[in-house]
Amino acid sequence: MAPRANGIGVQVEDTKICVVMVGLPARGKSFIAQKAQRYLQWLSIDAQTFNVGNYRRTEAPHPSADFFDLGNAEGEKRRRAAAEAAMHDMLDWFRQGGVIGILDATNSTKERRKWVLDTCTKEGIEVLFVESKCDDETMIMANIRDVKLTSPDYVGQDPEQAAQDFRNRIKNYEKVYKSLDEDGDENDYTYLKIMDVGSQVIINRIRDYLQSRVVYYLMNLHIRPRSVWLSRHGESLYNLDGRIGGDADLSPRGHQYAQKLPQLVADSIGEDRPLTVWTSTLKRTISTSRFFPENYNQLQWKALDELDAGVCDGMTYQEIKDVYPEDFVQRDEDKFNYRYRGGESYRDVVIRLEPIIMELERSEDIIIVTHQAILRCIYAYFMKKDQSKSPWMNVPLHTLIKLTPRAYGTDEERFSADIPAVSTWRGKGSTAKHENPTPGANI
Amino acid sequence: MAPRANGIGVQVEDTKICVVMVGLPARGKSFIAQKAQRYLQWLSIDAQTFNVGNYRRTEAPHPSADFFDLGNAEGEKRRRAAAEAAMHDMLDWFRQGGVIGILDATNSTKERRKWVLDTCTKEGIEVLFVESKCDDETMIMANIRDVKLTSPDYVGQDPEQAAQDFRNRIKNYEKVYKSLDEDGDENDYTYLKIMDVGSQVIINRIRDYLQSRVVYYLMNLHIRPRSVWLSRHGESLYNLDGRIGGDADLSPRGHQYAQKLPQLVADSIGEDRPLTVWTSTLKRTISTSRFFPENYNQLQWKALDELDAGVCDGMTYQEIKDVYPEDFVQRDEDKFNYRYRGGESYRDVVIRLEPIIMELERSEDIIIVTHQAILRCIYAYFMKKDQSKSPWMNVPLHTLIKLTPRAYGTDEERFSADIPAVSTWRGKGSTAKHENPTPGANI
Repeated sequence: MAPRANGIGVQVEDTKICVVMVGLPARGKSFIAQKAQRYLQWLSIDAQTFNVGNYRRTEAPHPSADFFDLGNAEGEKRRRAAAEAAMHDMLDWFRQGGVIGILDATNSTKERRKWVLDTCTKEGIEVLFVESKCDDETMIMANIRDVKLTSPDYVGQDPEQAAQDFRNRIKNYEKVYKSLDEDGDENDYTYLKIMDVGSQVIINRIRDYLQSRVVYYLMNLHIRPRSVWLSRHGESLYNLDGRIGGDADLSPRGHQYAQKLPQLVADSIGEDRPLTVWTSTLKRTISTSRFFPENYNQLQWKALDELDAGVCDGMTYQEIKDVYPEDFVQRDEDKFNYRYRGGESYRDVVIRLEPIIMELERSEDIIIVTHQAILRCIYAYFMKKDQSKSPWMNVPLHTLIKLTPRAYGTDEERFSADIPAVSTWRGKGSTAKHENPTPGANI
Repeated sequence: MAPRANGIGVQVEDTKICVVMVGLPARGKSFIAQKAQRYLQWLSIDAQTFNVGNYRRTEAPHPSADFFDLGNAEGEKRRRAAAEAAMHDMLDWFRQGGVIGILDATNSTKERRKWVLDTCTKEGIEVLFVESKCDDETMIMANIRDVKLTSPDYVGQDPEQAAQDFRNRIKNYEKVYKSLDEDGDENDYTYLKIMDVGSQVIINRIRDYLQSRVVYYLMNLHIRPRSVWLSRHGESLYNLDGRIGGDADLSPRGHQYAQKLPQLVADSIGEDRPLTVWTSTLKRTISTSRFFPENYNQLQWKALDELDAGVCDGMTYQEIKDVYPEDFVQRDEDKFNYRYRGGESYRDVVIRLEPIIMELERSEDIIIVTHQAILRCIYAYFMKKDQSKSPWMNVPLHTLIKLTPRAYGTDEERFSADIPAVSTWRGKGSTAKHENPTPGANI
């Protein structure tokens, strides 16, 4: 059978890419690496980060800046050994079917980059260098304070002394650092150079679609503070009946939620700034969003419509089990991949949500009013949830979720509207109309 | 009512962008401009190109190279007047609701660029400079021969003399040409710089999603020769019944087409090179593609599935008219925008095809085996067809279409398999199962 297009719509089984981070310390390399890994894994592309610092730390847990001095032969030897150990594990991982490996290290000399390129090329792995270059001292110091001082290297040390030590460590790297293609002799390399957190990017010799998707994602990242709010529509008449899909109106309690939602959102913001509201094109999300203030822009997206249940649209789970017993079992066995007859799978939904995720990455404060399956997929992206588990997550009605992306991971707050609603969660094998979620189902 | 997300999923009504081409003559500026315009119009974004050369030509139809010499005061005055006339018309067009205006000229000096920027900024129009920079003499001369000598400037002239004259004209521009941000004093500008047809691109200060989509599209263009083949699936059992949608098997004549298709394709290539086959996930396209040689890669795309007819899936047009008489009329009134209950409109299909178009632009030889509505949308992109007319186009079964993009426009060839099939074309208001297309319906 011909392969299905994956999350970014391309057959990747023959492509292996090593994304090689380049840049001085405190330039956000690990931030970029972990974002890329999360995005690719969400798209079901096998991706893994190999952090050379972690390999080095097992040998030298708390090195001082001297360790990073080129004059320190012992330090240089150990750092080289760490790079080799990371490369060794990465190549093993590729041989077992890995698709995109991310080598997270400074790779700040031409010699080191050539070694990485040659080693990967020999194994048939494409190399995409990604450099983060930033000369803004304020941004660098903010990064040191926010990220580096919480690193294992500095556990239990005086913050001021640690910050000073870290600045010295950077200076040692600066002595040997060469920006990518700075001398024009790396212009055959495939690379993305991100300057000052995306204010300028240079893209050199991108070769294929998968590379171009990674590059497009990375060039859209920003680090301005913002949050994303998620809510399901208010309880609908179909929810009351235990029916799936359709385009039903809200129940009386659903209308109550719609009325309360703007205040719930305003309270969660803490200051007076307007959000942009995204809904699906279905009545129940549009109706839930009709009381937001006039200075909130609103936008309807077809891509936010509920998972299409095809021939099962409008049925209860009991009806599905009666009419399509085999499908009922198959869906429970692999809910992420099961595609309703004439409808969609969760995997299909992820593909159509990809532009939504891309625009979310570019945007600042957005509230999304959408549907259970869609919310599960978006939540899984931000919270890095396993795609095999996310279709089973409990996402209660009448609850506002606020997600705030941080350097590593995403903070979550929940705000209940205190308006009763039925549960639409369903456990494996169950055909109950309304079932109490098991404790493990709470996301 | 909240605005619907448009073709690239973003609300653009408040955004106006002037794309300002920059570069020496024969660098493919007009090629880029017309591709961008076609792409945006296909996405229902109002876009228009303003070519300064056309304004200049009305004044000086056959200028010699001297005309472009800076020392020629009369020439300079007229070229300035042409730029002002183009700008004047463009601003008028923006005031009438235009979204993306493309100013196609050399804009080769900093002064001219500052004038464009200031003039647009005063009107609340964002400016995105797009420079094509190319120093490859072979590529430049190829462009002069292929494109420029067919230009109105050189009608009736000796080709060799004309080429020489054109080279001299470029030399005059070279004297004053400054590449974007070459001196570092244009680094506040939003720009895309494309070097040597995309081998390197620099992206500076892209500000919003719409800009980023234009940039992403332009950076994926290539000019390597290639073709795209389009075919509908073979005749299906549903086609025989006059039913729409579904997931039916092929009819006996549909199977004949599947058997004949590989040879039809091979004959149309003219040489022995393998293609990549894209199908939908539905039986009738997969079945139609099962006899291609083993060295043809195959890939299934959900995005290539037929337009979802929602509640009307599996019905004949007579049944639709009987059960949903209002919908039947509404669809005929505005077929591009009409969305089936629980299903899709042509506009929705265009949105989900956008990644397909992007990958097609990046790719080389592809054959797409898909469905009537999908083929109409893809065809409309390449052949620049009006979206209000494309849903009515006749796309006969058992016919292979070969499209070959050229510098300006796309060449088309058709190859009939000479295997009879029913017609699935339908005229406005008709409920006939099989109807002969009117002559005007042929695309």
